[in-house]
Amino acid sequence: MDKDKLRRIALGETSAKLVLKNARIINVFSGTIETADIAIEDGIIAGIGSYEGIKEIDVCFSYVAPGFMDGHVHIESSMMTPGHFARLVMPFGTTTVIADPHEIANVCGLSGIQYMIDSAQHVPLDVKIMIPSCVPSTPFETAGAKILSSDIEKIKDDPAILGLGEMMDYPGVIHGDREVYRKIASVGMMPIDGHAPRLTDKELNAYVLAGMETDHEATTASELEEKVKRGMYVHLREGSQTKNVRDLLGGITHENHSRLLFCTDDKQPEDIISHGHISANINLAIAEGIDPIDAIKMATINIAQCYRLRHIGAIAPGYHADLVVFDDLHQIHPHLVFKNGVIVAKDGVALFQPPPESTHPLGQSVRFNPEAIDFRIRVTSNHVYAIELEKNNVTTKKTPIMIRTQSGCYIQDPASDILKLAVVERHQSSGRVGLGFVKGYGLKKGAIAMTIAHDSHNLIIIGDNDDDMRLSAKRIKEIGGGIVLAHDGHVLHQLPLEVGGLMTSTKVESLIFQLDHMKKMARKLGVNEAIDDPLLQLAFLSLPVIPSLKLTDHGLFDVDQFRIIPLEVEAK
Amino acid sequence: MDKDKLRRIALGETSAKLVLKNARIINVFSGTIETADIAIEDGIIAGIGSYEGIKEIDVCFSYVAPGFMDGHVHIESSMMTPGHFARLVMPFGTTTVIADPHEIANVCGLSGIQYMIDSAQHVPLDVKIMIPSCVPSTPFETAGAKILSSDIEKIKDDPAILGLGEMMDYPGVIHGDREVYRKIASVGMMPIDGHAPRLTDKELNAYVLAGMETDHEATTASELEEKVKRGMYVHLREGSQTKNVRDLLGGITHENHSRLLFCTDDKQPEDIISHGHISANINLAIAEGIDPIDAIKMATINIAQCYRLRHIGAIAPGYHADLVVFDDLHQIHPHLVFKNGVIVAKDGVALFQPPPESTHPLGQSVRFNPEAIDFRIRVTSNHVYAIELEKNNVTTKKTPIMIRTQSGCYIQDPASDILKLAVVERHQSSGRVGLGFVKGYGLKKGAIAMTIAHDSHNLIIIGDNDDDMRLSAKRIKEIGGGIVLAHDGHVLHQLPLEVGGLMTSTKVESLIFQLDHMKKMARKLGVNEAIDDPLLQLAFLSLPVIPSLKLTDHGLFDVDQFRIIPLEVEAK
Repeated sequence: MDKDKLRRIALGETSAKLVLKNARIINVFSGTIETADIAIEDGIIAGIGSYEGIKEIDVCFSYVAPGFMDGHVHIESSMMTPGHFARLVMPFGTTTVIADPHEIANVCGLSGIQYMIDSAQHVPLDVKIMIPSCVPSTPFETAGAKILSSDIEKIKDDPAILGLGEMMDYPGVIHGDREVYRKIASVGMMPIDGHAPRLTDKELNAYVLAGMETDHEATTASELEEKVKRGMYVHLREGSQTKNVRDLLGGITHENHSRLLFCTDDKQPEDIISHGHISANINLAIAEGIDPIDAIKMATINIAQCYRLRHIGAIAPGYHADLVVFDDLHQIHPHLVFKNGVIVAKDGVALFQPPPESTHPLGQSVRFNPEAIDFRIRVTSNHVYAIELEKNNVTTKKTPIMIRTQSGCYIQDPASDILKLAVVERHQSSGRVGLGFVKGYGLKKGAIAMTIAHDSHNLIIIGDNDDDMRLSAKRIKEIGGGIVLAHDGHVLHQLPLEVGGLMTSTKVESLIFQLDHMKKMARKLGVNEAIDDPLLQLAFLSLPVIPSLKLTDHGLFDVDQFRIIPLEVEAK
Repeated sequence: MDKDKLRRIALGETSAKLVLKNARIINVFSGTIETADIAIEDGIIAGIGSYEGIKEIDVCFSYVAPGFMDGHVHIESSMMTPGHFARLVMPFGTTTVIADPHEIANVCGLSGIQYMIDSAQHVPLDVKIMIPSCVPSTPFETAGAKILSSDIEKIKDDPAILGLGEMMDYPGVIHGDREVYRKIASVGMMPIDGHAPRLTDKELNAYVLAGMETDHEATTASELEEKVKRGMYVHLREGSQTKNVRDLLGGITHENHSRLLFCTDDKQPEDIISHGHISANINLAIAEGIDPIDAIKMATINIAQCYRLRHIGAIAPGYHADLVVFDDLHQIHPHLVFKNGVIVAKDGVALFQPPPESTHPLGQSVRFNPEAIDFRIRVTSNHVYAIELEKNNVTTKKTPIMIRTQSGCYIQDPASDILKLAVVERHQSSGRVGLGFVKGYGLKKGAIAMTIAHDSHNLIIIGDNDDDMRLSAKRIKEIGGGIVLAHDGHVLHQLPLEVGGLMTSTKVESLIFQLDHMKKMARKLGVNEAIDDPLLQLAFLSLPVIPSLKLTDHGLFDVDQFRIIPLEVEAK
């Protein structure tokens, strides 16, 4: 960067390589809109005012906002490799993401994180990496790797690393787990993301005291307010499964909105293509009555300040020329997106290619013997706990139910709303299988199997009969991970996710087409209409850090008690 | 710090050493007031809520705010050593200052900065040091030292150093001066203070682009607004000589107030004792209609965010227990002040002693020969420029005047409002003297001499006759620097400032008594009633970075042209 040339451009002594003429600039510092030109050189904004450029783009009084940022995202949840993810989100104005690659890290450890860093370097999207702090998320599940404080020390100085990812082990923080505190200490003064669903009062104090700076798990306005008061930045999340923006908007005030950020956390590709990426949070907030500039701040400068990122998130001298150009301030659809002064998307189409990828860049990640799985559930009582689904959320209820049994084994009652759930350890070929019951999913016939199963990404299978469950497991093994639907002895569809069993470099159009097809088939097989996304819902049933009841390869997990519990309801 | 003990205190499992009960907490994150207890251990806030302590102080629903911060101050302007300064300001609630020791640095260089760091370590006031960037402020004056980029490299890693102090050489920034850019680069990503009076449009772009992050020279609401828009944090200054808060309040909006900070810059001890320190900015803003919590934010969290200071400026878990307790939210008079959980002031009285100091901790700093000074002003025309004072500001006007002359030398006209001004180089004994004219000061008889003369702190003397001017210079030499008033062949008063000719460790009561006495005498000698502070006004007449006309030991300095000019008005 030629600082002296930039200086002369700012002064108007030399023409900038590029000038955006007649921009209605969203100024996130003053909360105002000013009409001016933007002079850009070497990807940097040299000046705001009246400028001439070697190349000039007259935006004809369109609005120009700073590039949008996603404050917390697991790219893997898009099922796309970072290159394909970038091509999908940048047309919606996203130029920077704070990414926690904890899905791939659960499968492949540090190699998985390195893959995400390397892969992102070939695309213009700015991917800031938070080191996954909880791999595995609890000791009560088997992941493909562990990330210890010593591992964090090893990679924290990589320039792509921004801080420590969401500290989901809030019980560990609260109860003083030494390794948790070593992890926190290992990143020094770097940003640390929290994850503290429903945490309040003294426990919240202890959690914040330990260094957690953000939270994206608030689901009510009062939870948001308390967390802001204690000094946290709070993300308003709008993902595929967890949609909190509308519920949280009531907590926004003129006084606290600089502490609020937008994020997607986990968002499926079809939702991104239909509703936008972080632009969806902005547009939803605006539709609900939030001032458009305030909404944009939550996707730009607020995130930059929270994560201590200099020179992004605003349009001012010295800032990166990450710019989003659009015409309607109340329903933002960018027609031009710039990253570092280069047009990266126009009218919804990315203008760059994803990097070429090998078929299995991280090698084989699916290891288990499908023939050896024993799907039978042995119980000592027919009064058991089921995982009951909650609408539009990944939280579940711990619900006692009555089941039918024969010879000490569960047998399916076609009239009931109960299904069998299996979590098959797929990393170490240990043969370990967790078995349990799900209420409210609605599948009537067949099985669905996936290697996306938060957070350890073992093989999760839901079904009404063991044969289809086994068949889908076999096919998963054959395709090296992915999603399989089986019914009546036939595989209905298979989607290979060749990168760690989580992501694919299939074209996004094909991926979305296949996902749509599978979801429609799942509906045909009976999945409850109240469930937004049959696949995503399934993927979260193994996540032992979200209340209240989950299943891991170790068995049924009571999140509130933070321990494995028996299937059977205890006699009083 | 015992992290595990803090955790248990936060959880309420163990009692904190100190709990403030029943506090009405000013929450700067939410902009709300909440009633709760504050648990404190090891100087850190462990929790907010309901707590029990080994020691409890019931504040009985008094307000508790985070400790106040001064965003930009030259401690030397109080004429007190850091220890005495701390004793003066902490009872008003100030717990942290961002200090630029550029006065003492102009006299003693790096040793002066080191003296300030060392001296502050003995008192509870948190003194964050910005390395003076412009010593001397211009090449057109002679200071006692130079601070080069290589010097900045030497000290920047000292833990007391926060960043680079106000870059007053804005012409150097704008015009690409290499050493200026080396200085900026030398501090890397540390905060950099700006100083950009009246800078606007493209020049402001170039200045911000070069890395300047703050400005404390805005004097109008529109200047504030433009600087905020360009990404600067803007200080609202209320010092002894420059009082900008009232004029700037019109520029504050809900959207931009998080980018606004309070500072004093230069404040005399009598003004601090009469009106408060940074509390005076807060109270003035509140009196003018700013929401009290917004006003407090400008003295706390906003400053912490601007200067990237973690864990100060708010009341939340993990933050330093820097607390100000008061009863009236509309006229803040702290009755208790805590620094790191320890009471440092009560009902206006500091509860700690200043460190013992040697008589001349920095040695002799006054070097010139009073007998050799030639006070005669030789002119080739009687149409000359005078430095004309402006009310309540340190800016001046360049005003052509007619003078009386005899044998090519200026002679005093008792009927005129013109006085002779001399700046005598006092660091290197070079014998260099700058001579000029001042309009609007009003002294009728006698002379005033000071070794406080921004920024090089040469000896500045104003008078209506050469004899009293020489007499005062002789006495200054004898007392090793300070302030002297002479009249009719007699010294009326002398105030020794034994530390670099700038500061004293005299008790503040005595210092204020003497300053008051001297100012009253100055009035008796005729100094204009419109001049708030006869001494401070004089001290700024040599500062060549504030428009428009100043005098240095090199001669008359035109700030707008940024060069030494002749006394005589050029023939057209």
